[in-house]
Amino acid sequence: MLNIRPLEANDWPSVWAVLEPTFRSGETYAYAPDIGEAEARAVWVGAPLACFVACEEDGTILGTYCLKPNQPGLGSHVCNCGYVVAERARGRGVASAMCEHSQREAVARGFHAMQFNLVVSTNEGAIRLWRKHGFDVVAVLPGAFRHRRRGFVDALVMYKQLES
Amino acid sequence: MLNIRPLEANDWPSVWAVLEPTFRSGETYAYAPDIGEAEARAVWVGAPLACFVACEEDGTILGTYCLKPNQPGLGSHVCNCGYVVAERARGRGVASAMCEHSQREAVARGFHAMQFNLVVSTNEGAIRLWRKHGFDVVAVLPGAFRHRRRGFVDALVMYKQLES
Repeated sequence: MLNIRPLEANDWPSVWAVLEPTFRSGETYAYAPDIGEAEARAVWVGAPLACFVACEEDGTILGTYCLKPNQPGLGSHVCNCGYVVAERARGRGVASAMCEHSQREAVARGFHAMQFNLVVSTNEGAIRLWRKHGFDVVAVLPGAFRHRRRGFVDALVMYKQLES
Repeated sequence: MLNIRPLEANDWPSVWAVLEPTFRSGETYAYAPDIGEAEARAVWVGAPLACFVACEEDGTILGTYCLKPNQPGLGSHVCNCGYVVAERARGRGVASAMCEHSQREAVARGFHAMQFNLVVSTNEGAIRLWRKHGFDVVAVLPGAFRHRRRGFVDALVMYKQLES
């Protein structure tokens, strides 16, 4: 059983342990692979509207996601989410559970749609998963992501109108 | 003759006079139509990598644009620009001149591509102009802009790979 709850201040070390290998890999998120812990905390926890953690029954944090408006003012009814799952917890439905949770949260907060701005085209598992959750690929951005191992690769914009 | 040069600190009052009617209209930019001057200054001048003004021969500021990376780190080779032309200077090629200038600036700064994230679908003049300058419509985002008069309208993502 997975429990998804709002992030609390003392969760940060566990959340950073989940985020760090993903950010360092430079394969799926645009943040500089050498991002410092303080900056990572600012972008993941400080900037968004809300941040959540997905926990095992014993409280171990297996994943985290954050939710924020994708644009200011007249574009702020479309939200953006980022999700990261601990390497050792992959394949257990954690991303899927967080994606569903985030859509309910987004609807509850009055958002009309959810947009992912930079889905790396080589991140096939994620693309398959977001499609399964009703997201459409609305754009291919040629060479928009500098993959740490593969060099410049395309990135996708994915979008879903939410039902309230 | 139009002179496009880097913005200087004492240009701000003239730049704000150009920006304010556009931001207040709520028809083309997502910033809240009641945005305060200090916040507008922070987003237009403070946040971007570089900011420019387009001046008449007598120095009157007719337009302004700003240039910044569209994403951090591994997406920072794609830039984003915003352009605003004074109402009374429209139809005189100011936006076109700034668009060309911004592409040269972007190439000089090492950017590979330029992306516009939220081109309001009802802003037909702008869409026509960006197409003329080689930008492709890569996405339609359904209902992504809350137009102040027309309600929810689609927004476009436009993208151009730059030649260095």
